[in-house]
Amino acid sequence: METNTANSTRPAVVLLSGGLDSATTLAVCRHEGFAPYALSFRYGQRHEVELSAARAVADAIGVERHVVTEIDLRLFGGSALTADMDVPHRRRVSSDDSGIPVTYVPARNTIFLSFALAWAETLGTSDIFIGVNALDYSGYPDCRPEYIESFERMADLATKAGVEGRQRIRIHAPLIDLSKAEIIRLGMSLGVDYALTHSCYDPDVAGRACGTCDSCLLRAKGFAEAGWVDPLSRPA
Amino acid sequence: METNTANSTRPAVVLLSGGLDSATTLAVCRHEGFAPYALSFRYGQRHEVELSAARAVADAIGVERHVVTEIDLRLFGGSALTADMDVPHRRRVSSDDSGIPVTYVPARNTIFLSFALAWAETLGTSDIFIGVNALDYSGYPDCRPEYIESFERMADLATKAGVEGRQRIRIHAPLIDLSKAEIIRLGMSLGVDYALTHSCYDPDVAGRACGTCDSCLLRAKGFAEAGWVDPLSRPA
Repeated sequence: METNTANSTRPAVVLLSGGLDSATTLAVCRHEGFAPYALSFRYGQRHEVELSAARAVADAIGVERHVVTEIDLRLFGGSALTADMDVPHRRRVSSDDSGIPVTYVPARNTIFLSFALAWAETLGTSDIFIGVNALDYSGYPDCRPEYIESFERMADLATKAGVEGRQRIRIHAPLIDLSKAEIIRLGMSLGVDYALTHSCYDPDVAGRACGTCDSCLLRAKGFAEAGWVDPLSRPA
Repeated sequence: METNTANSTRPAVVLLSGGLDSATTLAVCRHEGFAPYALSFRYGQRHEVELSAARAVADAIGVERHVVTEIDLRLFGGSALTADMDVPHRRRVSSDDSGIPVTYVPARNTIFLSFALAWAETLGTSDIFIGVNALDYSGYPDCRPEYIESFERMADLATKAGVEGRQRIRIHAPLIDLSKAEIIRLGMSLGVDYALTHSCYDPDVAGRACGTCDSCLLRAKGFAEAGWVDPLSRPA
């Protein structure tokens, strides 16, 4: 992968779930010449397969360091991804009339970005990458540009560097305006191996994608529109 | 303790460290008639005595539920309270020229408030209490009113209720403009038993306060100005 070296000595914290979007985001971060520090969470999600994918993606793309930290969002419940609720299949289902689905995890991106902020501050850097996407997305409030901008403003007031005016926190969300097909084309151009990624909300015991949850449906649509075959859909 | 029942069916999440400020904040939350849900963190702090104090304070003042959740801020380092650095004694010491001391934990209040936000959203409430204080404080950036207001704005954009315009997140910081002496007088008027609280950054192996760290000095000054004897300073 060709790498722009303009930022090569500058660390950036990258939130890495092991999914298609965060893998592409890590590749963009590397391509822009940052030294990536990848951060993943074990947060009561149902499947360790996500973290295995995150490790494989970090190894393949290359990072300075990969930290997996454990947080317990199950204490609070409130989501099909962390509590004892069923993940919906073959349809876009909301928990209520808001259009926000039951797979939404309360304040998840705020918690993830807060940890990234702590690490960035310790590393002495102001750059954080997150693979949120406001277009072909699941309707979560914390995936929208106005949320990201608001987090940046808060972070400037929360940190030493921001208070001193030395540097402003920058939350890079390079996928925010892209369709899933555009994300896949971007990742392909940067050499991302999507066979290593994991998107399914409800895999079987062997870790295989269900093909019918919201996340699988978005992924399939993205690959179809991009004109690529999803490597995960090929027979092994 | 007299309790205003106007909010009595309304849950509020209260960040509870077991220190003097958070104990007073919990008492204010109860006094205002909220049903408190107390949230404490085991975050790689040096001393379990803080969490024992949090439990004792929660029991004494009364809460609907007390959750202690573990997060590992040691992964990132960067503070005398979580990393292998010395806590300064008998002087206000900064880590650099910024006036922000080495006991500052990067992004700590942002992480704590993010978890509180997740719980508040799950409880269907918009009220969060935090005992930050911008006057007799240790010079941390995330204790200032402009930081708290900025977190509120971000939280409105991060949550279902905020997006739907159903309710705005409110971060209550009832101590923010008070001196330490005023905090102590307020707590005394609400019946807080400060013998249960713990403030020291660097207690001995038996959990006794050092009396000379920044936090102990602020506490001693506060009790002296309030005209009370600190119950922790009395011989057992």
